[in-house]
Amino acid sequence: MNWIKVFAPATVANVGPGFDVLGVAIESWGDTVEARRSDSGVSISEIVSDYPIPKSPEANTASIATIEVLRELGNPGGVELRIKKGLPPGSGLGSSAASAAGGAFACNYLYGNKLTSQQLIDAATNAEESVSGRYADNTSAAILGSAVLVKSVSPVEIIRLGSINELKLIVVTPQIKVLTKEARATLPEKIALKDTVKAMANTSAVATAFLKDDYNLFVNSLEDVISEPIRKKLIPGYDRIKKAAIYSGADGFIISGSGPTLCAFSNKPKEKCESILKAMESEIENTGLSYQSMVTGIDRKGTRLI
Amino acid sequence: MNWIKVFAPATVANVGPGFDVLGVAIESWGDTVEARRSDSGVSISEIVSDYPIPKSPEANTASIATIEVLRELGNPGGVELRIKKGLPPGSGLGSSAASAAGGAFACNYLYGNKLTSQQLIDAATNAEESVSGRYADNTSAAILGSAVLVKSVSPVEIIRLGSINELKLIVVTPQIKVLTKEARATLPEKIALKDTVKAMANTSAVATAFLKDDYNLFVNSLEDVISEPIRKKLIPGYDRIKKAAIYSGADGFIISGSGPTLCAFSNKPKEKCESILKAMESEIENTGLSYQSMVTGIDRKGTRLI
Repeated sequence: MNWIKVFAPATVANVGPGFDVLGVAIESWGDTVEARRSDSGVSISEIVSDYPIPKSPEANTASIATIEVLRELGNPGGVELRIKKGLPPGSGLGSSAASAAGGAFACNYLYGNKLTSQQLIDAATNAEESVSGRYADNTSAAILGSAVLVKSVSPVEIIRLGSINELKLIVVTPQIKVLTKEARATLPEKIALKDTVKAMANTSAVATAFLKDDYNLFVNSLEDVISEPIRKKLIPGYDRIKKAAIYSGADGFIISGSGPTLCAFSNKPKEKCESILKAMESEIENTGLSYQSMVTGIDRKGTRLI
Repeated sequence: MNWIKVFAPATVANVGPGFDVLGVAIESWGDTVEARRSDSGVSISEIVSDYPIPKSPEANTASIATIEVLRELGNPGGVELRIKKGLPPGSGLGSSAASAAGGAFACNYLYGNKLTSQQLIDAATNAEESVSGRYADNTSAAILGSAVLVKSVSPVEIIRLGSINELKLIVVTPQIKVLTKEARATLPEKIALKDTVKAMANTSAVATAFLKDDYNLFVNSLEDVISEPIRKKLIPGYDRIKKAAIYSGADGFIISGSGPTLCAFSNKPKEKCESILKAMESEIENTGLSYQSMVTGIDRKGTRLI
């Protein structure tokens, strides 16, 4: 049986105010999962990664999602996986979700493409749950592409929101690890009613911006009163990096997921975005941290065969 | 100078989960404001109402909004008002907002229609603030018609959301008065983070439903974890009335604004909606309260000359 190769994009969860309910897939960055049928069971024969990634099939989200899909298909056979991690784990770019999406998609493809996108999202979300908690913002955006609204996680109910054509994302990932579980532990258990109202308004406005392809509404609705004030403390140099991005012309700035990835927004030409990126990088260099970075756009395709 | 006559529709604020951020205008129910130019000042020469309504120009939202609009226009003259209250105050149908919208619209019309909708909403919201607090959900829906998202109240920023064509509203207003100020005093100051997330998801989903004209998404997104659990206690027979509506076929049920108006939703033919209404009425009759009721739809026109 031949190998197939699947790409699953990186994703930005929360997208500013939308804590746990908004996600968007981004171009040119993600995990690659190769897969072929085997007689039975799920195995990982190779992981190419600059980071330590669990190779046990019970601990890697690509293989856990594969197991979920096989079960859903009535266990018609096995799958052998080779994983090329493009995304650093604990980066806030949906690393575990991308692997899960890649595994789920690949397995379904190998066995006749019988499952719906919804079923693939369910499988990937179950896999995500087993390593970081039950969140569907990264998994659903990775599977579907573009922006999504998570109406519910149990059961998973996802609304496709669409895309903002002129939106460019200026992404910097400092090399510190922020684990979702730990980042969540720092959040307050209760939110002031007035902040809840603001979060509802801004989240609905960002969703509307994706639905209407409205760049200005998008960048004017990013204020996050729930997680930014807390999570920024986990990111060295946060205030300076944000200020550098805005001063150099970015129209908005957020933490991607639980961080440490930072994402600025612009609709200007590529050179302008590169200069915003340079300004952000130069502040990160002041912290002494190394980083990865990229100017990119919204991925509209989601997880796919390549 | 001749009299003009303006109609301003009733409005349902919150629309389930969207506490303080969603509003929708409803058909066939509202306030009528007649107006003509006068030399100076704003006077109310007549109020036709089954309820006690302040006739002092400084205490009535129609005249306060008129004063606001005159000021915005540079005080070109005065206005004499005659108000016909269709909406009971303290009903949760945006009674004060409808009067404010009518006064603002009428005054602007009399003096050359120079203000934008945004300016009329500002004037009506300032008037609303002077009697019940700074909320823009009712005022903006009354001025614009259809559904709106209040992105911010200071300054007022409103996003038009659109309408759901097949949506029918089955509205019952028990004759008890729930004043916004008092209803708000009963709400908690803090909301659990998980409830905040649910409110964000459902509010965004309702906004999406209006944007996409999606009835099913609408009725499946109405759960309100913030205000319903508290405010239902102010409405005698609430649980029974809700149960009666759902059992007789309604697809959703909410408190309108801070109540006591109750609103069930259906997309079935009028006779079916009438039978849902009957079921609700019969439960209200058990409480001994009198009531007003109506089967209606979304008002798409907003405040207008008639």
